[in-house]
Amino acid sequence: MSGAVGLVVKRRSGIAEDVARLVVKELVESGVEVLVDETVDYPSLSGFPRFSISRDPPGRVVVVGGDGTLLRTFLRLGERESPLFMTIKAGKKGFLLDVERYEAVERLRDFLEGRFREVVYPRYRVYLEGEARACMFNDTAVTANNAKMARVHVFVDGDLAMNIDGDGVVVSTTAGSTAYSLSGGGPIIDPRLDVIVLTPLNPVQLFLRSIVVPSGSRVTVEASVYSNPLVVNIDGQYVYELEPGGIVDIERCGSGVRIARFRWWEDYYERLYTRLLAYW
Amino acid sequence: MSGAVGLVVKRRSGIAEDVARLVVKELVESGVEVLVDETVDYPSLSGFPRFSISRDPPGRVVVVGGDGTLLRTFLRLGERESPLFMTIKAGKKGFLLDVERYEAVERLRDFLEGRFREVVYPRYRVYLEGEARACMFNDTAVTANNAKMARVHVFVDGDLAMNIDGDGVVVSTTAGSTAYSLSGGGPIIDPRLDVIVLTPLNPVQLFLRSIVVPSGSRVTVEASVYSNPLVVNIDGQYVYELEPGGIVDIERCGSGVRIARFRWWEDYYERLYTRLLAYW
Amino acid sequence: MSGAVGLVVKRRSGIAEDVARLVVKELVESGVEVLVDETVDYPSLSGFPRFSISRDPPGRVVVVGGDGTLLRTFLRLGERESPLFMTIKAGKKGFLLDVERYEAVERLRDFLEGRFREVVYPRYRVYLEGEARACMFNDTAVTANNAKMARVHVFVDGDLAMNIDGDGVVVSTTAGSTAYSLSGGGPIIDPRLDVIVLTPLNPVQLFLRSIVVPSGSRVTVEASVYSNPLVVNIDGQYVYELEPGGIVDIERCGSGVRIARFRWWEDYYERLYTRLLAYW
Amino acid sequence: MSGAVGLVVKRRSGIAEDVARLVVKELVESGVEVLVDETVDYPSLSGFPRFSISRDPPGRVVVVGGDGTLLRTFLRLGERESPLFMTIKAGKKGFLLDVERYEAVERLRDFLEGRFREVVYPRYRVYLEGEARACMFNDTAVTANNAKMARVHVFVDGDLAMNIDGDGVVVSTTAGSTAYSLSGGGPIIDPRLDVIVLTPLNPVQLFLRSIVVPSGSRVTVEASVYSNPLVVNIDGQYVYELEPGGIVDIERCGSGVRIARFRWWEDYYERLYTRLLAYW
Repeated sequence: MSGAVGLVVKRRSGIAEDVARLVVKELVESGVEVLVDETVDYPSLSGFPRFSISRDPPGRVVVVGGDGTLLRTFLRLGERESPLFMTIKAGKKGFLLDVERYEAVERLRDFLEGRFREVVYPRYRVYLEGEARACMFNDTAVTANNAKMARVHVFVDGDLAMNIDGDGVVVSTTAGSTAYSLSGGGPIIDPRLDVIVLTPLNPVQLFLRSIVVPSGSRVTVEASVYSNPLVVNIDGQYVYELEPGGIVDIERCGSGVRIARFRWWEDYYERLYTRLLAYW
Repeated sequence: MSGAVGLVVKRRSGIAEDVARLVVKELVESGVEVLVDETVDYPSLSGFPRFSISRDPPGRVVVVGGDGTLLRTFLRLGERESPLFMTIKAGKKGFLLDVERYEAVERLRDFLEGRFREVVYPRYRVYLEGEARACMFNDTAVTANNAKMARVHVFVDGDLAMNIDGDGVVVSTTAGSTAYSLSGGGPIIDPRLDVIVLTPLNPVQLFLRSIVVPSGSRVTVEASVYSNPLVVNIDGQYVYELEPGGIVDIERCGSGVRIARFRWWEDYYERLYTRLLAYW
Repeated sequence: MSGAVGLVVKRRSGIAEDVARLVVKELVESGVEVLVDETVDYPSLSGFPRFSISRDPPGRVVVVGGDGTLLRTFLRLGERESPLFMTIKAGKKGFLLDVERYEAVERLRDFLEGRFREVVYPRYRVYLEGEARACMFNDTAVTANNAKMARVHVFVDGDLAMNIDGDGVVVSTTAGSTAYSLSGGGPIIDPRLDVIVLTPLNPVQLFLRSIVVPSGSRVTVEASVYSNPLVVNIDGQYVYELEPGGIVDIERCGSGVRIARFRWWEDYYERLYTRLLAYW
Repeated sequence: MSGAVGLVVKRRSGIAEDVARLVVKELVESGVEVLVDETVDYPSLSGFPRFSISRDPPGRVVVVGGDGTLLRTFLRLGERESPLFMTIKAGKKGFLLDVERYEAVERLRDFLEGRFREVVYPRYRVYLEGEARACMFNDTAVTANNAKMARVHVFVDGDLAMNIDGDGVVVSTTAGSTAYSLSGGGPIIDPRLDVIVLTPLNPVQLFLRSIVVPSGSRVTVEASVYSNPLVVNIDGQYVYELEPGGIVDIERCGSGVRIARFRWWEDYYERLYTRLLAYW
């Protein structure tokens, strides 16, 4: 594979900027054209041509930052054809990014020379009141504000699966199963599976548990007409309001995102627990 | 005991209005003076003298409504000396109110003639940034809005008890243990105990569990400077904003509220489960 | 489809015997040959030729009883080619059996005349110390006795997934996800998925959660050499001892069991919650 | 305080023996008479007079070992008047023992010279079928063997609190709340409180949660006549059988055990989480 390599970098992070400069230096020395995403505003990276992930992404894109940076990049990409991403972690939180910054240059050479495993991650289109809003990678949460009670009905392919009076519900992909859904009591999904997880959040209905449904299912979250007003949060990045009686539909997108992975599958669970326990 | 009986009634509820009229009729026939709280606006109850629970409550007050009505009444009462309350449930949700509406008149006679058990419920004063805001009866929740991550530190008498990255924390009394805290995974507290329950809400720190501390403890919830902005919800009724770095303190009030109970202790657990399972 | 229909009936149950007699009467009147499994000892069913589910099952078998009866039937069948089963519930517990006894005759006609949906349920072979012991339909639990601490290591395709110090672990199929695994905090798996659920039982490691892995995975449960002696319970029916250091392996069987389902997919979640809440 | 000091030491542990020899050396050098419990069989400690914790304990007793050693010592003590205990941890697990071995000699001097805080821990008498069997310090678990279903009814002062179909129930003291009960989903109880925690183990009744009841309550666990045979495990040390229909009663003992604590109250929660997370 050849052609330019695009660069997306977390903002306002000295660590991310440093890593990005190492990446750029290696790309330039390797004779690869460097493009920088329009959202990047570090002076040290201002000398390169620009691109926009949401309009004209090159075939290969390196993302440097944390989970938030990566999720916003995917949301901005929308449903256009996915570049091949390489993900470098700069910061404490970044379970989705597999390359540590101390190994960034070495892995970048692997990336340029084809020594990686390409993994395609499915995404799901989120509709509010019938209108497509975004393609989620991790999860969509439907909750109330101000700790007021949310009341929602959750349907799977039209069948009622849960009535929830409580904090709401998280609809998660396999990738998102180790994020919000896990905190809500949901299961860890093996990364080789492609499923959707429905996790009720602090329901009054104490008997409710997470439900795992096929990737192809249409999931519908309906705000009860008796509910307080709700908010819909897609991938922790985009927030929309949802009135009582409103409807959120979620279904499989046509195309996933492509990520070059280097050591993703090794010691998956050990890395997961290590990350989780790093919080205390 | 003698003197006037005050009446607080849930608003915009035909059922509550009907029950209130039965109560008024019985009081009038018994020769008891009737006072109606300033918040009551039913035309059918407009002919009686007014009082305000927050300024000049009479010695006895009958509350007709649901948990929300009762909790707002206690919040409005503030820290002034408690009247003796009688609580009649009108509506579906009202675990804190022990008299069903079909038995309202009979229990009212018991109330007037002293056939009940007086129970004193402790309350806790909630301070925001050092300023007392309200006396909670059930619980205080500190959470983020828009499903953003809340980051809080919880202290008990100055000792760090939990670092929570997630949806926040609920600080609950014994009475509140069967409300929000229970949905969050907290224990049921026997009504004879006087304790505080700290329940983390969907923490990234998966190993956290509810903590039960003595009633006399000072509980402090500190918003991390790295947190998203938070909201503080007292008894599901009063909502305040809390900036990153802000502090909520909770400690025992001097005086509790006095409630006349008729069958409260009988079949406590059966009634509890019946209520919980009524939701499906 | 034609040929004899075999009958397996729960023992020591007047209800099951009554239902079985209705089934036999209908089969005889329809001119279908009736065979009775060797484990059935009701005098009212003694006049029919015998068969053994573990040696010479006919092509169609009707099971009358509860979950235990059905699970034992499948275990006895072993890995031989599956007959087409019809399942009639006789008794309170029988979530796996979809035909209620009041509709037994009507559904039997549907069964004989091909009006049903055939569902193939995967099963998993359980090895103890390398030796195949049984094909599980629901789950295999590895636990300690006498409330002593079990210590196990759980591997998925050779990768360490959990170290559990506690009551042990349940390895469950999709069908078993609503049984023991659910009580242990595991998720509900949509019946259209084919996965394995690993649910830790009361682990000291409070951060552990259920893990959902692909159906084709090899799951290994290793008793720590520091563990108390363990027991392995397959489908709640077969119990084996496992010494410290011992190994249980679980992997997909070649063939599943075939069940004729009539209304299985309708209102799946409503039926599930109704069953769960019937216990209080 | 003066008089002899008794010594109880974990068996078959080189570490415990080493610590015990340091303790003995210090006691001898301080001119304190040393007595060794009858269960201690290290040759290096064979030259001292003997005592029995269950017959003639001296006024002060040093326990060296882990939680199991300490719990067995308390069980052996029974209901006789408690000596003043000092507890030194030798081994990995010993949350109940507050002195680390590297500081054993220094704390022993504090112990001899009165520089400690005496804490009295309540205990609860366990009756099987009306017959007193032991005084529990941590907890009593009622479970089934072989992963069979236990069916129990739990009463608090004669009122039905839980029907459990599952793995059984743990009845825990405050001290025991961080042991088995915590693994079963129970709350952490602040060590200043004196309560009983009832924690259901993997119930089919998914809506059940832990219940916290007053220390003076009488807790009754009744094995259903439909249950599989059960076992009763007291403090993880004593195991009894319980037939279907059998009854376990638990109520407060007259006297607690007295333990000299040195740093127990400092950083309680940090030490707790550190211990819990040491397991991965």
